[in-house]
Amino acid sequence: MKAAVAGASGYAGGELLRLLLAHPGLDIGTLTAGSSAGGTLGEHQPHLPALADRVIEETSPETLGGHDVVFLALPHGQSAAIANRLGPDTLIVDCGADFRLDSAADWAEFYGGPHAGTWPYGLPELPGQRAVLAAATRIAVPGCYPTSVTLGMFPAFAAGLVEPDVVVVAASGTSGAGRSPKASLLGSEVMGSVSAYGVGGTHRHTPEMTQNLSAVAGRPVTVSFTPTLAPMSRGILATCTAPAAPGLTRARLREAYQEILKDEPFVTLLPEGSWPATAMTLGANTAALQVTLDERAGRVVVVVAIDNLTKGTAGGAIQSANLALGLPEELGLPTTGVSP
Amino acid sequence: MKAAVAGASGYAGGELLRLLLAHPGLDIGTLTAGSSAGGTLGEHQPHLPALADRVIEETSPETLGGHDVVFLALPHGQSAAIANRLGPDTLIVDCGADFRLDSAADWAEFYGGPHAGTWPYGLPELPGQRAVLAAATRIAVPGCYPTSVTLGMFPAFAAGLVEPDVVVVAASGTSGAGRSPKASLLGSEVMGSVSAYGVGGTHRHTPEMTQNLSAVAGRPVTVSFTPTLAPMSRGILATCTAPAAPGLTRARLREAYQEILKDEPFVTLLPEGSWPATAMTLGANTAALQVTLDERAGRVVVVVAIDNLTKGTAGGAIQSANLALGLPEELGLPTTGVSP
Amino acid sequence: MKAAVAGASGYAGGELLRLLLAHPGLDIGTLTAGSSAGGTLGEHQPHLPALADRVIEETSPETLGGHDVVFLALPHGQSAAIANRLGPDTLIVDCGADFRLDSAADWAEFYGGPHAGTWPYGLPELPGQRAVLAAATRIAVPGCYPTSVTLGMFPAFAAGLVEPDVVVVAASGTSGAGRSPKASLLGSEVMGSVSAYGVGGTHRHTPEMTQNLSAVAGRPVTVSFTPTLAPMSRGILATCTAPAAPGLTRARLREAYQEILKDEPFVTLLPEGSWPATAMTLGANTAALQVTLDERAGRVVVVVAIDNLTKGTAGGAIQSANLALGLPEELGLPTTGVSP
Amino acid sequence: MKAAVAGASGYAGGELLRLLLAHPGLDIGTLTAGSSAGGTLGEHQPHLPALADRVIEETSPETLGGHDVVFLALPHGQSAAIANRLGPDTLIVDCGADFRLDSAADWAEFYGGPHAGTWPYGLPELPGQRAVLAAATRIAVPGCYPTSVTLGMFPAFAAGLVEPDVVVVAASGTSGAGRSPKASLLGSEVMGSVSAYGVGGTHRHTPEMTQNLSAVAGRPVTVSFTPTLAPMSRGILATCTAPAAPGLTRARLREAYQEILKDEPFVTLLPEGSWPATAMTLGANTAALQVTLDERAGRVVVVVAIDNLTKGTAGGAIQSANLALGLPEELGLPTTGVSP
Repeated sequence: MKAAVAGASGYAGGELLRLLLAHPGLDIGTLTAGSSAGGTLGEHQPHLPALADRVIEETSPETLGGHDVVFLALPHGQSAAIANRLGPDTLIVDCGADFRLDSAADWAEFYGGPHAGTWPYGLPELPGQRAVLAAATRIAVPGCYPTSVTLGMFPAFAAGLVEPDVVVVAASGTSGAGRSPKASLLGSEVMGSVSAYGVGGTHRHTPEMTQNLSAVAGRPVTVSFTPTLAPMSRGILATCTAPAAPGLTRARLREAYQEILKDEPFVTLLPEGSWPATAMTLGANTAALQVTLDERAGRVVVVVAIDNLTKGTAGGAIQSANLALGLPEELGLPTTGVSP
Repeated sequence: MKAAVAGASGYAGGELLRLLLAHPGLDIGTLTAGSSAGGTLGEHQPHLPALADRVIEETSPETLGGHDVVFLALPHGQSAAIANRLGPDTLIVDCGADFRLDSAADWAEFYGGPHAGTWPYGLPELPGQRAVLAAATRIAVPGCYPTSVTLGMFPAFAAGLVEPDVVVVAASGTSGAGRSPKASLLGSEVMGSVSAYGVGGTHRHTPEMTQNLSAVAGRPVTVSFTPTLAPMSRGILATCTAPAAPGLTRARLREAYQEILKDEPFVTLLPEGSWPATAMTLGANTAALQVTLDERAGRVVVVVAIDNLTKGTAGGAIQSANLALGLPEELGLPTTGVSP
Repeated sequence: MKAAVAGASGYAGGELLRLLLAHPGLDIGTLTAGSSAGGTLGEHQPHLPALADRVIEETSPETLGGHDVVFLALPHGQSAAIANRLGPDTLIVDCGADFRLDSAADWAEFYGGPHAGTWPYGLPELPGQRAVLAAATRIAVPGCYPTSVTLGMFPAFAAGLVEPDVVVVAASGTSGAGRSPKASLLGSEVMGSVSAYGVGGTHRHTPEMTQNLSAVAGRPVTVSFTPTLAPMSRGILATCTAPAAPGLTRARLREAYQEILKDEPFVTLLPEGSWPATAMTLGANTAALQVTLDERAGRVVVVVAIDNLTKGTAGGAIQSANLALGLPEELGLPTTGVSP
Repeated sequence: MKAAVAGASGYAGGELLRLLLAHPGLDIGTLTAGSSAGGTLGEHQPHLPALADRVIEETSPETLGGHDVVFLALPHGQSAAIANRLGPDTLIVDCGADFRLDSAADWAEFYGGPHAGTWPYGLPELPGQRAVLAAATRIAVPGCYPTSVTLGMFPAFAAGLVEPDVVVVAASGTSGAGRSPKASLLGSEVMGSVSAYGVGGTHRHTPEMTQNLSAVAGRPVTVSFTPTLAPMSRGILATCTAPAAPGLTRARLREAYQEILKDEPFVTLLPEGSWPATAMTLGANTAALQVTLDERAGRVVVVVAIDNLTKGTAGGAIQSANLALGLPEELGLPTTGVSP
């Protein structure tokens, strides 16, 4: 089967290609981009020498047609135009935000403009979602922060262990902000510094977290979300906490997480006493997770580490695509990180 | 006046010396250390060439006697023995934890062993604390995390704007973990990675935060505190959130912070729209702070950046010492960070 | 075929295991270590969840026996004792220095103690070396710096383009210094700083470079080598320069490198105008190389980037092992880096 | 006396202001910039809270007039137009390249366009230069790389200890590349990676090094210069090597450096056995230097660390300005680094 990648010169596109190069079930077809079209991939992704001489084409329905799967790693708002022109025979996996949100009101508030619609949500670990994805021809890949937070908190809500008032503070590497040059993302600015941004519930990933956790909880969940930028290229460490349900014990909490996550190929509940570090997951399609109960504060605390470009974007995209294409879910996806 | 520094070969000791070298009211007297005694300071603090040839002496009441002020930057548990042998004519400023906690039960639970006692707490910004410190001959310097969290949240409690259920997630640079070699603190481990530790209310700085905020609030405050380690040498970014009091508005919140902090020489409430980065405070005795109300989640969110070694340790120590010595509080303390 | 790894809890051992997990021709057998024996691999290499529960055994001829290949990632001086007890049926691939040097005098001067001997040198790119390695049952894996410098300069000497007076300055990530805790390798010390060490021809890798380049040149080559430590976990960037032979032109220089390297699977001569960055090779068994002629200074300048743990240690070890085991040289070795 | 800073929103401008804030002999007057004009300094330099509300004006002879000293931190080519309009009563200190080179041919080759002229060169450590600067009304501040290399090698040439064939490889922090956003300078690109650029004698700082060392040597010196970019915001570590003059001994070499540098307030020859790290000089106007003889390779090796923004730009500028203004050379300049 053949895969096209739109947005091949960016960070998400580069990670898709890195993973596809090692994927035994998918060949790499057309590569497209916007302003980089016409050049070779080697100019933009020198870490992928096997594709160095591939020419980047314009992103259009024509160049992307004729593939079994098309991965879109485009700026927000550009996916619908492409998707409308590709028939249901082509699986489309959108790494952008366009089709993630159910609520048109949330879309309008956080992204602005008309809501393009809602596609099956590419987080196979959510209850019942594997069946949905197996039948999908369109997939909305979750945002990187929502991937980490949803993986961390859905077991607690599924098992009814917490109150619906979540606080999340997450640190992200800079690749999450993309490859467009901005002064605030210069190495000189980010090295040696951790900074906050999008504070006070204004970050666009907030309604996506609320949507996911409310669906699992079966009632409205609020999320206070604060993202921070850390001096590293890759990785998200999300600290999630919510009030413990009355009577919750640490043993019951751990048991529930173990039970719910025990067959997940890409989510690791760490041994007790060990806490996640993003380095555990660098370059891997894995989430490293730990959970505890702070009895004094009466709160469940979950910490989750992922690689924002792998499990948080490109790996998650391929994992869902595998399901939709009838391939083994784990095919071609690394569970081994690159460390130190 | 003459200042001695015990623990001169460590990170806190080095920072004390860096600041004292620029302090017009304090001369640097004896330098002491444990296993580094007998060597020169240049072997340990090559960034301080002016003191390169100074010989490090053993830490003892004898070597530390005869100074106007003695700064202790020693491992926990060693301060009392020194302090008991130095009379009230010598101001002792302890950067360690020994005398920070009021509660012997908290001490026993979080540090173990007998409680040494409680000294005046070296955070001049707390209501009424400047008068306390002006009369002190013994000062307990706050921990680095409690400095950031207390500065960030005390105005909210002083003005009655939040409920007493605080969640804090803070990122710290590695210098907070000290200079003793450990595999987990190797550059290879920490670069490119953010990790969690001391999760679930187990970090020793938790009761100190609870103590400070409860005192200001006039009722018990709980703190869910999660520290994380970020790939930088210096800096703390603390994200603090608590449920907003009923009817709180963003305008009222900002007004209260402005009013309470308006005369503080070392705490900057940033302009609206700007959020703290640790780079703003690197090497400075300042805290950069921003506050907002997340109306959807019903929470006040405060973000505070400090340099853990400056305002969080050595600078805070000198600020309090200035007060106790009858010097201008700001004397010799930089408000200018080193950036980028 | 089955592979054992001695020194599994260190950085080189961890990288061997990361690569072996993806190697289709080698199963992972016994894992051993020194002081870490008795624990599980998960305690030391949390980025390798597939091996988390594997118990680490003592390093001994007994535990290492019965494998087709044994990879040794041990401190210097420990390999001979193991090797002597394992028969020629077992391929032994030593990532340490014990068997790299021909000259007992060089060994004595740079390492001290008796010279253990010389094994076939595991750098397949050297002229004639593939045949040597195909017949080998013992392999000495090159040092990380000598790998980069030899790959960069051997074409110039093979083609007679430079005078035998080489100057090398190389920057290395901290993982090259190993996992034993030392104060000078703490994150606090290395982040934000580049430092020099082993200056003036004293670094142990110097005679290995001299040996390799002299062999290719057919006459004695001197190397002035200065290693520096850079704030990154992985990677070596080696800048190598030597006086140009009389009459050399830039075109002739490039042509020679192209010709000599054209069939190398793991060495990439970059397009003109592009210069190596270690990020191009992170986690890959590749070397990225560029060469030019500085006409004003009359010198050839070659810059080489490798990952010190992959092509510089574990990947190079497996590449040579593949040859000795009759497997395809490239089997199981990534040519794709992890970036950004 | 009053100082204006043109280019106040960039990195060099920010560093000038950081140092001027602590300078007892110079008050900060007008701040100007290009596209940032009209905003406040706080938007661009949040680490300088004391100047947060200062409004940035347009860069022009009018806004810059009426000061005792004007520091120019402008893009190349903009200084002459300003300088021509300010009379000799105003000391002009240009941090740009416009007036550094004697040779119009070098200017044309490396910078292009007409040569603006040559101003007294702001490196007081060069033989005889203090007298020149004391009489100057115009000063060309050296480039950051040439500062480090010239300080490292001029003693060897002054004492006739080396042959005139220098090889330099230097690592620089990213602030040397300025604050204009470029994709190649994004944090995601530079963290975890060392890269080469401007190889083969093409970097613009090369003729400046050649000019300085040739002047001291009294004969033409060639310099093979390779700059590399390291994952840190600040700092240069320059490794410089040249063939030793016949018969040179290590003792003679050290003695010469000691003698020549013994009264320099800002250059530290480290104790034997200690090698420079950029962290030793972070934020300080100092150079940390070490020298040795590699007898096997027959080369003198000098390693120099500076902060590219302090001694390498803004600190060097103020040091020279002090001389020209009749102030003590060391006034207001820190010799203490910020570490760790």
